[in-house]
Amino acid sequence: MEKIRIGIVGYGNIGRGVELAVERNEDMELKAVFTRRAPESVKILTEGVPVVHMDDMSGMKDEIDVMILCGGSATDLPVIGPQIVKNFNTIDSFDTHAKIPEYFANMDKAAKEGGNIGIISVGWDPGMFSLNRIYAESILVDGDTYTFWGKGVSQGHSDAIRRVAGVKNAIQYTVPVEEAVKKVRSGCGPKLTTREKHLRECYVVAEEGADLKEIEETIKNMPNYFSDYDTTVKFITEEELKANHSKMPHGGFVIRSGETGRDGNKNVIEYSLKLDSNPEFTSSVLVCYARAAYRLAKNGEAGGRTVFDIAPGMLSMKSAEELRAELL
Amino acid sequence: MEKIRIGIVGYGNIGRGVELAVERNEDMELKAVFTRRAPESVKILTEGVPVVHMDDMSGMKDEIDVMILCGGSATDLPVIGPQIVKNFNTIDSFDTHAKIPEYFANMDKAAKEGGNIGIISVGWDPGMFSLNRIYAESILVDGDTYTFWGKGVSQGHSDAIRRVAGVKNAIQYTVPVEEAVKKVRSGCGPKLTTREKHLRECYVVAEEGADLKEIEETIKNMPNYFSDYDTTVKFITEEELKANHSKMPHGGFVIRSGETGRDGNKNVIEYSLKLDSNPEFTSSVLVCYARAAYRLAKNGEAGGRTVFDIAPGMLSMKSAEELRAELL
Repeated sequence: MEKIRIGIVGYGNIGRGVELAVERNEDMELKAVFTRRAPESVKILTEGVPVVHMDDMSGMKDEIDVMILCGGSATDLPVIGPQIVKNFNTIDSFDTHAKIPEYFANMDKAAKEGGNIGIISVGWDPGMFSLNRIYAESILVDGDTYTFWGKGVSQGHSDAIRRVAGVKNAIQYTVPVEEAVKKVRSGCGPKLTTREKHLRECYVVAEEGADLKEIEETIKNMPNYFSDYDTTVKFITEEELKANHSKMPHGGFVIRSGETGRDGNKNVIEYSLKLDSNPEFTSSVLVCYARAAYRLAKNGEAGGRTVFDIAPGMLSMKSAEELRAELL
Repeated sequence: MEKIRIGIVGYGNIGRGVELAVERNEDMELKAVFTRRAPESVKILTEGVPVVHMDDMSGMKDEIDVMILCGGSATDLPVIGPQIVKNFNTIDSFDTHAKIPEYFANMDKAAKEGGNIGIISVGWDPGMFSLNRIYAESILVDGDTYTFWGKGVSQGHSDAIRRVAGVKNAIQYTVPVEEAVKKVRSGCGPKLTTREKHLRECYVVAEEGADLKEIEETIKNMPNYFSDYDTTVKFITEEELKANHSKMPHGGFVIRSGETGRDGNKNVIEYSLKLDSNPEFTSSVLVCYARAAYRLAKNGEAGGRTVFDIAPGMLSMKSAEELRAELL
């Protein structure tokens, strides 16, 4: 069997996750990891696979089928995405929801120029949650869709706390309010405020002698991040933080309830994730979409794509015949 | 806006459900209901829409974009499916899992001959549950998938009870065993027997003077249907049956748990449905796939398809731009 040759661009949590996911997909092989750092300073998990500087990427055009871009959405992907997709098929997890239309347009243009496929915003939200929103909304035309996140770590909120004066380290969990989830599941279609949907739990390591009361107030009143939520702040030691809060669990729910027929029949569709490792799961989604990118490119297609454009059968190692016989 | 013109073939629970679902989709209109009965004997809910005999279908080739086939899988669809798809795009809910490969081959051949699209096995299982099996399996390569059905009415099992001597009427609910669902959700990947996964609850109206003990034993020991399950039999009156058991609720769960990475991280994906009306929900799925069939045919495609072959964006009333901006 000819294996799908994968390149990883950027070696952080997601890059490492992709490396581990490729390991579990027997129709794929990791060909190289690309980095902006000095390649010799980057130790990867897979033996015999080279770490290559980003500047030397274009020389490997014939050796890699799909590049999985593991950079950040804020400043990294908007720059490197369109550059790389000119030479390679790409998958990324671009997740700045508001900027998706602009990013898509740039990726689509560059992908078409290069004759490649660029699938953007792959992961679980955007990604699997988006898919569940579209399926559920298409089926239950009249209804309400709710997305809950957590319990899980929000990197952005943790960073925001770390910028508060007197804070040495911190981690923030987004927690869905159980009462709200229960109401939504009942199918009654409740109107819920931001505060009613999620709690924010903060675990903070303070600097010695810092004013804890002031830190707590500063966090709780931070606009955009915390002021619209019920927020709890708990001070812990650096050791406790390391011991109890160094894993990256996450999860959440997409729930749509809607009416059918003329007799007020209610129907509830729910999709949920419970993840021990957010980056490993996100990476596993990226990797199966790499298979789709490979197949689309083989079919001669080119341009930008999202999960909405990819037929589910494209993701599976199984043939169409096997899928119909075994999974339908 | 040019509306998608829908025809309904067969006017039972699903046919009526499709009629009601079309009502909620503003880009569609019902053009005709086709029946094998005398058309004047069939009263439909929508005013001004003709009921037409099946024999007169071919004359309406230019008036209908998609035919939704609402017949049974045992004897009806295998015959009429290939006939109709020669002249029309079709959607059906063929659900005899073991015969899907054969039915697909026949539909694919006939659809190609006619230059039409035939999407088979659409609904929730096969259908939405199949989609969730393929997505979850493609992401979590190493893991276990579990499908639970219920609580809901099984028509096949209810019919089996009605054939028992001394039984006047009956209804059977398939019920997932809570303990099993809980175990599966924990991510431990349990091995479960048929008996451990589902219970069967039977509500039976006996004929006067019938031997209740014997009826109960006959049901509980019926091979294939009941002998592998923990089955309860409760005798009720015809009035109770009508009052408390005439609705058609259903639902179920698809759960996959799987490991990622090298540290034994567990991840659980769950999809669940809770339906007040099984036929109305199934019909709502059929109708959004009719939109996909219409679009594929417009694009010049022809042949058999399943839900695995249809990109999710095809199902939505929204444009690709709207979907990226609003749902991704």
